[in-house]
Amino acid sequence: MRDILPGLRSRCAAGTPLALATVVAVHGSAPREPGAVMAVDAEGTVLGSVSGGCVEADVYEVAREVLAGAAPRVVSYGISDDEAFGVGLTCGGTIEVLVRAYASGTELAGLTALLDLVAADVPVAEATVLSGAAETGARRVVRATGVHGTLGSEGLDAAVTDDARGLLDQGLTGIQWYGARGQRRMAEVAVFVRSHTPPPRMLVFGAIDHAAATARIGSFLGYRVTVCDARPAFATPERFPTADEVVCAWPHDYLEATGADARTVICVLTHDPKFDVPLLVAALRTPAAYIGVMGSRRTHDDRLARLREAGVDEAALARLASPVGLDLGARTPEETAVSIAAEIIQHRWGGTGRPLGELTGAIHHPGSRP
Amino acid sequence: MRDILPGLRSRCAAGTPLALATVVAVHGSAPREPGAVMAVDAEGTVLGSVSGGCVEADVYEVAREVLAGAAPRVVSYGISDDEAFGVGLTCGGTIEVLVRAYASGTELAGLTALLDLVAADVPVAEATVLSGAAETGARRVVRATGVHGTLGSEGLDAAVTDDARGLLDQGLTGIQWYGARGQRRMAEVAVFVRSHTPPPRMLVFGAIDHAAATARIGSFLGYRVTVCDARPAFATPERFPTADEVVCAWPHDYLEATGADARTVICVLTHDPKFDVPLLVAALRTPAAYIGVMGSRRTHDDRLARLREAGVDEAALARLASPVGLDLGARTPEETAVSIAAEIIQHRWGGTGRPLGELTGAIHHPGSRP
Repeated sequence: MRDILPGLRSRCAAGTPLALATVVAVHGSAPREPGAVMAVDAEGTVLGSVSGGCVEADVYEVAREVLAGAAPRVVSYGISDDEAFGVGLTCGGTIEVLVRAYASGTELAGLTALLDLVAADVPVAEATVLSGAAETGARRVVRATGVHGTLGSEGLDAAVTDDARGLLDQGLTGIQWYGARGQRRMAEVAVFVRSHTPPPRMLVFGAIDHAAATARIGSFLGYRVTVCDARPAFATPERFPTADEVVCAWPHDYLEATGADARTVICVLTHDPKFDVPLLVAALRTPAAYIGVMGSRRTHDDRLARLREAGVDEAALARLASPVGLDLGARTPEETAVSIAAEIIQHRWGGTGRPLGELTGAIHHPGSRP
Repeated sequence: MRDILPGLRSRCAAGTPLALATVVAVHGSAPREPGAVMAVDAEGTVLGSVSGGCVEADVYEVAREVLAGAAPRVVSYGISDDEAFGVGLTCGGTIEVLVRAYASGTELAGLTALLDLVAADVPVAEATVLSGAAETGARRVVRATGVHGTLGSEGLDAAVTDDARGLLDQGLTGIQWYGARGQRRMAEVAVFVRSHTPPPRMLVFGAIDHAAATARIGSFLGYRVTVCDARPAFATPERFPTADEVVCAWPHDYLEATGADARTVICVLTHDPKFDVPLLVAALRTPAAYIGVMGSRRTHDDRLARLREAGVDEAALARLASPVGLDLGARTPEETAVSIAAEIIQHRWGGTGRPLGELTGAIHHPGSRP
């Protein structure tokens, strides 16, 4: 939803009724994840997508019906080859899409409040009844502190609030099952819980030319990018116009202060043992998704020796992507940044890095976005 | 040089003396190609880079000396591990760097004229004497029609002009050897010929979401990007704000009219046989560097059958990167664009796509940029 946030907010601000179509479940291989949103406004304008191909045309029709007053509903699509728009389903997946209108002033105000939180990077979960012994489309918005809306019963509200906070904490999105009054271990009501978490962070250490290119591609991939270097002459916002922040500090001091979660990717381009060793010791204590380290093979070997001396064990060392990047023969800073981005994606989804044209099998890998 | 063009032009316009340090030769593996430029202005400000590491500090000192009146000269650096700034030289490469000042009004006017041509995408070659029986730093600027400057003798000028036009036509940059009066098969004078050719083109067919992301990463990699689609509702500049041009035309008609050279990369994201088949027939008649085609495996098989029916032979079909991209498990349009960019780079330089951390051997591949 973050990709179409400005368009959604401007429509809410103008009081324009909207229907939102949200992918709530994916079976098999499909082009978009649960949580992907396509919006249709009262003028028929489309924002975003739920798949890519012909599915959109049908979702559009359902959205128009819902905008015209039809009840919210969940529609299911078997994605055939052509509908999947060339994204490479070998056996076809199925997606389920919830289509719901926000037409009244109250509904638009509720959506506005949610979008404001998302835009302000406040973690917020949205729970919506899909089917069963509660009203399809009933919504409850859950934050760490505070809730808004009801799913129809106190018991269900309480159970879902509790679970949504847990899911939100881990950034997870998916369907939960309950009894009609919130009983766990029953499967009468399906509730889709969508976690809106702030963008994952990319921390780039070492304010060199390659860092500027890496910061740019990090933004392109949706990361909130921080560039950090201890040298004031290098750590300037002018050198990194696309970075969300530029920090002048000793790398390990900054990392220890800012922390890293399981979605954070860390790119160590400092290439100087006096920065690298304490920084990597600190980085390996975090649950970061990826720790890439630039350096020649000789530097890499030297660095491993220094890290072992510093007491880092082999299991921790095995987490390092070093030398950073996929072997593309990259030469310019931009090419190097692509090789780093490619490794980050491959690391997340489990690809082989080989040309798809030389392989067989699924183009999308199973995997769950943390 | 294109990467620092705005900074160079503003300094020329302000009459600020500059020294340009240009990589003129690379032996072994090195981080930047011949032609890479670092500039130092009279205020000591640095633009661009020739390597990445400690080499820059020394080049900076030489540039300051040349700006202060010392003669132009060529300096040689054995790039040790640390100097290479972590770009992975296993055995160390050597680079040779020409450092030359543009201090007088005449010199700055000459540089301005060159930069104007580069900025206007006019192919232009710059020939500079490096050493031998002619004055180091003597320059001649060569276009398809017209020349400027002299290397010191009519014979040398004539031979270099001739060769520079040939190199320019192929976009090649490198050192040529001559006799003092331009005799070929003699090696008395080394002349560095730098081709400034317009950026290579990326042609993106099919104005879908993935095309917008692919166009963005194409610009990032330095391509001049054209997006083409036959559907007026999709082929709009608003949907592709980073593209250099958006063309509404039948894909094969446009490709036949615009052509493609050996540096052009073609990304076919149309995913519809009525567009794809005639487009690919046309694309395979060009010397394009890369022809990537989006589609599932089923679409790919169907497309091959249709192309065979259209008379395309197996050797031509083997040129297609289809399904497009490296196997990274890419899922979002941005991730898919990275997988396409990674394949384009790999195709250019001959990488394996495997993580560098799992490999041994050179991080930079030998290869020549066409």
